[in-house]
This record gives sequence, structure tokens and C-alpha cells, in this order.
Amino acid sequence: HDWELRDNSTKLKRTFKFHNFEDAMRFAQRVGKLCEIEGHHPDLMIGWGYCRVEFQTHKINGLHENDFIMAAKVNRLLEL
Amino acid sequence: HDWELRDNSTKLKRTFKFHNFEDAMRFAQRVGKLCEIEGHHPDLMIGWGYCRVEFQTHKINGLHENDFIMAAKVNRLLEL
Repeated sequence: HDWELRDNSTKLKRTFKFHNFEDAMRFAQRVGKLCEIEGHHPDLMIGWGYCRVEFQTHKINGLHENDFIMAAKVNRLLEL
Repeated sequence: HDWELRDNSTKLKRTFKFHNFEDAMRFAQRVGKLCEIEGHHPDLMIGWGYCRVEFQTHKINGLHENDFIMAAKVNRLLEL
């Protein structure tokens, strides 16, 4: 599972799988902190065993280079 | 805005509004911790200025008394 273009290529989404709710929540917090620092906010969906991360540049209601950079930075969190 | 029944009354949802991403994330963490303690996990959606909380008893693919109890407990977080 990697990032996917969705909604007519206006959004970039990836679903990360976990073994419980707590780990999904912890990952969401890390993504949230990263995005605070970068000043580019995702939409996050969290439930038992998953965290879905969604990027969009709301100002243009579509995707911008920044969204792809953020996606790569979120991927890097998994390696830390 | 209060809790609403959705998807043929199989889910209970409420959207909480905030003034930024960080506050929405902080609220989501509090809801997450409460639900860990109670052992009943919601689906959370977080973005700039909002946190949506969704309860369902997945085992019955519908609503159970516990979902309404959890909704009331989440409401109480706002008062703390």
C-alpha cells in the first residue's frame, strides 16, 4: 500500500495499518506534529488498526508539490 | 451541533469545531485516551479546525447502548 491519488486527483491518500487503536493514534500524533512544524495540515482518520492520511492544498482544491513532499516526509516517519 | 444518527442509524457521529489543527488534534488524543480506558474505540477524523467522532459497535454493525454512553462521556470531556 502506497499513496494513491483520489477524488479526481485532487487528494493524496495513504492508509497505514497497525495492530491496535493505540498505535494508530500514536502514529497520528506524530504525523500531526510533523505537519504542525511544516505548516501543512492533513486530514487524518483513525480507528482500530488504521490511520489514513490525506493531503490536499485546500487553497487550490487540488494537489501542489508540497503535498507530495509531505507524503514523503510522512513515509520517513515509519523508518524512525 | 449534537450527535447525529447516520448511515441508516448504524452510526453515531458528532463534529467538534476548533480554531486550529493543534486543538483538534489535542481533543482527538483526549477522546482516544478515554476510549482506550473504556475499551470502546471510535473512528476519529481530524483536520484543520475539526474533530469528528464516530461510534459504532462493529460486532453488530450497528448501535448498542455502549455507543450512547461513550457519546455522553465524550461530551463531558468538553466540560473538563
